[in-house]
Amino acid sequence: MPKIAFLECSRCQHRESADVPRTVCPVCAGTFYVRYDLSEFKGTAVRDSLPQTDSMWRYSPVLPDALPVTLAEGWTPIMASRRNPNVLLKEEGANPTGTFKARGMSLCMTMMKHYGVQKVAVPSAGNAGGACAAYAAAAGIEAHVFMPQDVPLANQVECIAYGAHMTLVDGLISDCAKIVASRKEEEGWFDVSTLKEPFRVEGKKTMGYELVEQLGWEYPDAVFYPTGGGVGLIGMWKAFLEMEELGWVSGKRPKMIACQAAGCEPVTKAYREGKDASEMFQNAHTLASGLRVPKPYGDYIILDVVRESGGTVISQTDNEIFASIQDWGRNEGILLSPEGAAATAAYDRLIENGFLKKTDRVVIFNTGTGNKYTDVLNVMQRAHHAV
Amino acid sequence: MPKIAFLECSRCQHRESADVPRTVCPVCAGTFYVRYDLSEFKGTAVRDSLPQTDSMWRYSPVLPDALPVTLAEGWTPIMASRRNPNVLLKEEGANPTGTFKARGMSLCMTMMKHYGVQKVAVPSAGNAGGACAAYAAAAGIEAHVFMPQDVPLANQVECIAYGAHMTLVDGLISDCAKIVASRKEEEGWFDVSTLKEPFRVEGKKTMGYELVEQLGWEYPDAVFYPTGGGVGLIGMWKAFLEMEELGWVSGKRPKMIACQAAGCEPVTKAYREGKDASEMFQNAHTLASGLRVPKPYGDYIILDVVRESGGTVISQTDNEIFASIQDWGRNEGILLSPEGAAATAAYDRLIENGFLKKTDRVVIFNTGTGNKYTDVLNVMQRAHHAV
Repeated sequence: MPKIAFLECSRCQHRESADVPRTVCPVCAGTFYVRYDLSEFKGTAVRDSLPQTDSMWRYSPVLPDALPVTLAEGWTPIMASRRNPNVLLKEEGANPTGTFKARGMSLCMTMMKHYGVQKVAVPSAGNAGGACAAYAAAAGIEAHVFMPQDVPLANQVECIAYGAHMTLVDGLISDCAKIVASRKEEEGWFDVSTLKEPFRVEGKKTMGYELVEQLGWEYPDAVFYPTGGGVGLIGMWKAFLEMEELGWVSGKRPKMIACQAAGCEPVTKAYREGKDASEMFQNAHTLASGLRVPKPYGDYIILDVVRESGGTVISQTDNEIFASIQDWGRNEGILLSPEGAAATAAYDRLIENGFLKKTDRVVIFNTGTGNKYTDVLNVMQRAHHAV
Repeated sequence: MPKIAFLECSRCQHRESADVPRTVCPVCAGTFYVRYDLSEFKGTAVRDSLPQTDSMWRYSPVLPDALPVTLAEGWTPIMASRRNPNVLLKEEGANPTGTFKARGMSLCMTMMKHYGVQKVAVPSAGNAGGACAAYAAAAGIEAHVFMPQDVPLANQVECIAYGAHMTLVDGLISDCAKIVASRKEEEGWFDVSTLKEPFRVEGKKTMGYELVEQLGWEYPDAVFYPTGGGVGLIGMWKAFLEMEELGWVSGKRPKMIACQAAGCEPVTKAYREGKDASEMFQNAHTLASGLRVPKPYGDYIILDVVRESGGTVISQTDNEIFASIQDWGRNEGILLSPEGAAATAAYDRLIENGFLKKTDRVVIFNTGTGNKYTDVLNVMQRAHHAV
């Protein structure tokens, strides 16, 4: 594992050391990226002799040098659709806590423990809160989770089970973030909000390494990613750039398709209007609770990545999302999360409108297991007379 | 992959060919085991060059020769407890559909498709029904699932999502089994009830191969298995015998600890009374819905295995089960299923009473993810003022 060389601001390139735990850039409030000296890991020889660990820690040569707080996250299955072998589903529901959030929180809590942080706080749309609670429990760190009061029941139950201090807020993740910001100093909480510390994105970048390794160290034509806070998409792009620097992959990077819900589509709107950042989306409402992020902190990075990749941003209605859950359940035997179904539905739409061809090789992320949305899906099934 | 040599009755050793799909032994109604000629797979050279597939299909040399219906089941993590490295948790919640039932249904639907079966029916305590629905969808087979009306909501939601024909029954799995038995002929359903066909146990035996491989081809001192129908425990024992025949493992086989719930403990009772089979357990009631099997079809095999291994059968109350869920959530960052918690609680008890020592190396199976028990856990958390 490499030592961290420095932290670099994603917006103004300001640098800071990683000797102490840091939040955002003190100059411009941009998100910090972790930078290493990767020179000793260059070339396919290192790539082809990665540790055969069945978790994201197989990528230890490109992760910080610290003792992992792990629950066996990552190295999730990638499966070809039964109806089109060019459509590959990356099943993040196999992670601990049932979602991709495990990757970010594993690395984040690894570093919190490394730094000796004793209390963390997180505003969450649901699954990050659950993952934070689990990894904090594993690390012996006190966790304070703030979530909207109408998150899926699974997120509430898991936070309690993991012994986190849970507060349900009458509002959205943005309201939760305000509470954390206002109380963190007094309470001695370290704020592990999305993209307000550098390590969650660093954990999630492993999805980029994994999908490329699982495709035989080749890029797919496109990657579909359910985009709430956008950390997964941002992390994968960072991974692609690193892998190219390392000489582990080459060729045309995939089109990055950011998938939102019509009921909360700040990034889609900004993209459509040609803007560089989003505006607070009003009256956000969607059954894909993980996409209910009205103003992502890293919106400027998401928009950059999508444009540079030649991808797009696209939204689906809740009815389209539910239809895709039914479609994948009945035809593939896979129970998607509503967020994952926003991505599978987006694929269908981009085939329909000719943006992609059926012969294009695409990776679609199911960011979480449908099993965490039992209450939500039950309501939808009844409303659609599927019962 | 080997051809099946024959099917052998587990009770009277009667043999039948596997050329057509079969249920139980026509002579004594015992469960059939699949037997192969394994001579060409003997020795550590084969063992050490298994296909590096990250699923249970890495054991294809000891599975039937047919095209797998797979959703990437098996090869689940094994994790040391943070409090005692001799306690290893086998996390079956990472499977498709969130439980170990995926292994059995993957192999069962593989063979159903191989035989050209078009409709299957299954009585289930919950998770087998969900797995049957998922793998039947993947195989393009029509599934009819019968479950008690008070199974966790997750099991109902998943069966609907996978497009199965679901019937909720005012009764237990034994009542569901009666309905399947009475209607199957007329409806043209193939009955895939627990241990009434030979392939579910054959899929679940992969847990035995896996835990031994993950321990470096060595046996642990004991294996704790939540026991409703008992197929997992029975399958692992079959695996151990096969592995010894193959020369893949040697030494003392582990003590097999069958873990039941006090509210439904037919096997514990039979074991305590020195009997060879169980009696129908009256008024079965436990929050560990998967253990709510009042008269397991393979009770005689479970009791045999436990006795031969020098193990035991032990029951936990719902309060003990819930306490162990809290314990593992708060101290390990793992959300156990109630069935899994019956096994972790059993471990604590057997340490307490001296049956095992803390230095014994044990594998405890968490047979499913806690995420499928959100509604059940929510009620328990409220009752115990954990909220």
